[in-house]
Amino acid sequence: MSKSYTVAVVGATGAVGTQMIQMLELSTLPIKEVILLASKRSAGQTRTFRGEELTIQELVAESFSGVDLALFSAGGGISKQFAPEAVKHGAVVVDNTSFFRMDPTVPLVVPEVNAHALSAHQGIIANPNCSTIQMMVALEPIRQQVGLKRIIVSTYQAVSGAGARAIEELKIQAQSYLNEEPVDQWQTEILPSGGDKKHYPIAFNALPQIDVFTDNDYTYEEMKMVNETKKIMEDDTIQVVATCVRIPVVQGHSESVYIETDVPADVADIRQWLTNAPGVVLQDDPSQQLYPQAIFSADQTETFVGRIRKDLDVANGLHLWVVSDNLLKGAAANSVQIAEALHEMDLVRVP
Amino acid sequence: MSKSYTVAVVGATGAVGTQMIQMLELSTLPIKEVILLASKRSAGQTRTFRGEELTIQELVAESFSGVDLALFSAGGGISKQFAPEAVKHGAVVVDNTSFFRMDPTVPLVVPEVNAHALSAHQGIIANPNCSTIQMMVALEPIRQQVGLKRIIVSTYQAVSGAGARAIEELKIQAQSYLNEEPVDQWQTEILPSGGDKKHYPIAFNALPQIDVFTDNDYTYEEMKMVNETKKIMEDDTIQVVATCVRIPVVQGHSESVYIETDVPADVADIRQWLTNAPGVVLQDDPSQQLYPQAIFSADQTETFVGRIRKDLDVANGLHLWVVSDNLLKGAAANSVQIAEALHEMDLVRVP
Repeated sequence: MSKSYTVAVVGATGAVGTQMIQMLELSTLPIKEVILLASKRSAGQTRTFRGEELTIQELVAESFSGVDLALFSAGGGISKQFAPEAVKHGAVVVDNTSFFRMDPTVPLVVPEVNAHALSAHQGIIANPNCSTIQMMVALEPIRQQVGLKRIIVSTYQAVSGAGARAIEELKIQAQSYLNEEPVDQWQTEILPSGGDKKHYPIAFNALPQIDVFTDNDYTYEEMKMVNETKKIMEDDTIQVVATCVRIPVVQGHSESVYIETDVPADVADIRQWLTNAPGVVLQDDPSQQLYPQAIFSADQTETFVGRIRKDLDVANGLHLWVVSDNLLKGAAANSVQIAEALHEMDLVRVP
Repeated sequence: MSKSYTVAVVGATGAVGTQMIQMLELSTLPIKEVILLASKRSAGQTRTFRGEELTIQELVAESFSGVDLALFSAGGGISKQFAPEAVKHGAVVVDNTSFFRMDPTVPLVVPEVNAHALSAHQGIIANPNCSTIQMMVALEPIRQQVGLKRIIVSTYQAVSGAGARAIEELKIQAQSYLNEEPVDQWQTEILPSGGDKKHYPIAFNALPQIDVFTDNDYTYEEMKMVNETKKIMEDDTIQVVATCVRIPVVQGHSESVYIETDVPADVADIRQWLTNAPGVVLQDDPSQQLYPQAIFSADQTETFVGRIRKDLDVANGLHLWVVSDNLLKGAAANSVQIAEALHEMDLVRVP
């Protein structure tokens, strides 16, 4: 494995792209060269990678000539158009958008859970949705021991999942509130979903809509959690349902997760399994008021789990509180971990 | 019913007490006189009631002489000490603290659900916990039609539930964040629970602890929702479990509620039942992005319900999003509604 890779980052100026560059800096992946790609508008800007100043180039099909690995996070439309181009040029694509996730020929991977699925890749690997990834990291160690029948999750999601402009909007609204400006005069242009018709305040509010609604009155975000869980865990029989809510947090998604396992499990055992699990940090001691908190998960790559307790009535029912930085394990860190797993499994090549 | 009452407000300067005075101003209750009581520290301050300036008096046992109705919201310790004194002096007490709620001789009342329980009062009536009340208002109309087996609720609770100082702390922390002060230098003295050992930031965070922890690793807030639901609905067989979370919202608790009914119900029917239900405002039209939002529930006395949808797997499973102003329907408005019901049922007397 004396290979060394040319790695392209597509969407290098975005909230996730910025984190991808940082994650690559920290990565064990042998990197020969990093190429930063973005829209024409951002071309010419510079970013630093391991002390070297790199100029951002405009994304075109030819950008992928000589690229071994391309990490995409520039929206589904860009992935749809350019990921196949990258593959044609011989690059393996790790795509952070939802565009290819449910394509049966595309592995959908959380390395701690289903790295084995990478073996079947045909050039494109999809990175799951942020809210799905952290739930998978927390639940897989439990599922391996006692199975998993059912998940009911309510999320508390950070605005950074909606991009840099949403963060800015939250800050502007928070200042408006502190200035005692009436809420109907706040700037509200982005949330709950940039592409939807109406926009609502997020500062000092909770919005039970992430992404747009589907025909069954669930949102796309909710259905992503449902469908991606089944694909990643390779089990269509798991019952999954979600309520996805945006709250005024900048970084770090929190999740209130109820599960039913095949066999009842003791809390002490679950704590032990999670202590030993890859990518998990157990923070669970009510006597010390120790539990995961979004604000302290920021800039961490792990998934934090606490508030583990038995259901009060159902013997195989359990409740957990799961927190992770949505831009890192939820996006950039998971994408780079997929790239590292591809390298370790000698799969950085288009079949 | 040509009676007219002398009404005492105990804890008149607090977040809830302030709202109680406003709710009494708007009330249909025939009021002869209002007496405002608080600690020695607040005595001498004035408040306006229907254009009249009232001086706050120090709370002592003799304060209740000539009082017909006393609304308490000054902490459990004050209720423990002074509610029996009020009753001795002939006043009927509506207590907003948790102190008497699970006392089998004390009715625990949400007027829309179990006003009939008032008939058995022996001088003290308890107002349920804020997070319980709004859930009861939303679920009772459904339970009456198709029964109720099970509730799993995750809450998104406002800081005003922790009092005026918690609101101030949120604002100070929000400004600290906007000033880019490091989080370890923020003022954190109140939340998650004033009486607990450790305090954490709430601005741009989510805290999965409200009140202190009990021996079973649930918090008191969570166990209140469990035990109070069974008492109010007069059914110990209902399975209830809660995860209670504080989020950076000033007014308005939101709840992600999953229920299983005895008999499956159509969403269209549920919408109709809730449209006709007392105290409920249906806000449920995904095509118009219409759903309840905490920030718009502020200063409203109703409970707002939306995001109603069938579970994806369980035929009798349903999900709802329930929002209400925690200081109003969750506290002051419900207390005054209890007083109004007592008047209408001719029960404003100590038996």
